Amino acid sequence: MNRAQSVRTRTTSFLFLLLLGACAATAPVPSVDHLPSWNEGPVKQTILGFVGEVTDAGGDNFVPVEERVAVFDNDGTLWSEKPTYFQLLFILDRVRALATDHPEWHSQQPFKAVLESDMKALAEAGEHGLIELAGAAQAGMTTGEFEAIVSAWIASARHPVSGRPYTEMVFQPMLELLDYLRGNGFSVYIVSGGGIEFMRPWTEGVYGVPPQNVIGSSQELRYEQRADGPVILRDPGIHFVNDKAGKPVGIQRFIGRRPLIAVGNSDGDYEMLEWTTTGDGPRLGLIVHHTDAQREWAYDRQSSEGRLHRALDDAPDQGWTVIDMARDWGVVFLPQR
Amino acid sequence: MNRAQSVRTRTTSFLFLLLLGACAATAPVPSVDHLPSWNEGPVKQTILGFVGEVTDAGGDNFVPVEERVAVFDNDGTLWSEKPTYFQLLFILDRVRALATDHPEWHSQQPFKAVLESDMKALAEAGEHGLIELAGAAQAGMTTGEFEAIVSAWIASARHPVSGRPYTEMVFQPMLELLDYLRGNGFSVYIVSGGGIEFMRPWTEGVYGVPPQNVIGSSQELRYEQRADGPVILRDPGIHFVNDKAGKPVGIQRFIGRRPLIAVGNSDGDYEMLEWTTTGDGPRLGLIVHHTDAQREWAYDRQSSEGRLHRALDDAPDQGWTVIDMARDWGVVFLPQR
Repeated sequence: MNRAQSVRTRTTSFLFLLLLGACAATAPVPSVDHLPSWNEGPVKQTILGFVGEVTDAGGDNFVPVEERVAVFDNDGTLWSEKPTYFQLLFILDRVRALATDHPEWHSQQPFKAVLESDMKALAEAGEHGLIELAGAAQAGMTTGEFEAIVSAWIASARHPVSGRPYTEMVFQPMLELLDYLRGNGFSVYIVSGGGIEFMRPWTEGVYGVPPQNVIGSSQELRYEQRADGPVILRDPGIHFVNDKAGKPVGIQRFIGRRPLIAVGNSDGDYEMLEWTTTGDGPRLGLIVHHTDAQREWAYDRQSSEGRLHRALDDAPDQGWTVIDMARDWGVVFLPQR
Repeated sequence: MNRAQSVRTRTTSFLFLLLLGACAATAPVPSVDHLPSWNEGPVKQTILGFVGEVTDAGGDNFVPVEERVAVFDNDGTLWSEKPTYFQLLFILDRVRALATDHPEWHSQQPFKAVLESDMKALAEAGEHGLIELAGAAQAGMTTGEFEAIVSAWIASARHPVSGRPYTEMVFQPMLELLDYLRGNGFSVYIVSGGGIEFMRPWTEGVYGVPPQNVIGSSQELRYEQRADGPVILRDPGIHFVNDKAGKPVGIQRFIGRRPLIAVGNSDGDYEMLEWTTTGDGPRLGLIVHHTDAQREWAYDRQSSEGRLHRALDDAPDQGWTVIDMARDWGVVFLPQR
């Protein structure tokens, strides 16, 4: 073989290897478990079957990418909500932090109850008291200032029972489900009763859900000119309550499309589940049932957070799939780092 | 050359061609004009320069994809707004269509004015009269019904001056700009004073802007149970006016991020432009100045639609780029099909 032939042969072999590599890359890959924290069983099969169906380009139930919308509640669905809603714990922390500037709070309910950790007096203050606390903690600053306050809190605060950062109180099976759906062309939205601007600073980092895909309850906002430029102020009034029958309304306002998949855990998600699953064509409704006192909490009909009563009763008739946390999730939280 | 050598040589040549093809695909392509309907000049250069800067991964002004947000006004920015706002023409058409079910309208203002095409009486009815007409035309039905009404109108109605479908009254240079920005990783939003549900049925087909990227003024919505399933009703009250200082608020509510680029054409866009361009880092504000009575319309300070006065005065100080339609756009509308 002369030098030219030798070069050519080696080149040819190299190119064949390249081509082989290219072919290998497009050959069917061995089946991967996209939901490794979900135990095998009917719930996991329902999810995989549904996604397989709506993404099967040749099938009867194929849904184009732009219509693949999935909505998730947050509290009790993506992360825990015990001993109480994490945003309420944020509000209490914030009231305590602000108390040095408000000496009058030491003799004024519901602030006094917070500062004295008097849970009985706090409960007696009721919804009106909570609204007053929320206003003091979450209004009267710019949106930029509030974002900084939430970011600092979420980075430093610890869950009162587990001692872990709140962002580690998220459910690993749900993180996998979010990724799996996005990998199959779904736009994933959070549709929460919680405050939209309480969630946005950290949902992208924790859930991969960018701010424009977060729908929640909101304050009145006001654009204001200041000497150093314009700001948007958070005023005390409530603009929109994104809960119960407000959830389909929020979905309509923000997305303008009926979702294919809705995932919730409480009666507050009833209308969102109903609006989603009564649409034409294939739809999937999922309910997280907190049945795991060992690894998380066990509660439903009697709970003051995430009360699940009517939705649990109606799930079979509505065709909603109930996730039994103890049975269906092999992992709840990732181990502490 | 024996047969094996011949095959090998041909295979080698083929593979070299493949490789050459692959190389060609990654080599710098000859410069393509992404904005062919824009005349060469400082405005086009400003746009190209800005996009080049924020997408230059090695540059000082690089902005990651997730933060590349561009907001566009609709009326007078993406499509025409003369002889009056197209949504107002829709409302008038709708009132005429509903009049057979409302004999009382023939003797009741402002409906009488519409049915008799009495523009003087209509003008006298003022803003209050308009709100009454809008309520009659756009509330009291489900969101699904309203979507069907708008879709039927936009498919059949014709512009009173050009005789063309309204969806052909869109500015070709702006369609190119939307595509160019999306091609450079921008999320493109419409931020309009018009009704959000008046726009959503057709913005995806006409502008490539999906419903979730449309921000506008909105009615009160209400979730309601019916025998054949739940609906969302459009109630008469106004939920949110997405105009003037409402535009930055709408942007904050829906996107939760400050845009890099804002494009408008009137004083109603002032605050949106200001909020955008007073952000840190590179920002671009563009104003369409309607200077072309030949091909479109010429109007600014005295116009009842799209009044452009304060924003035009302040543009130089604010660093906003004014698009002179007659000078900067080689094409305004595509020729009639």
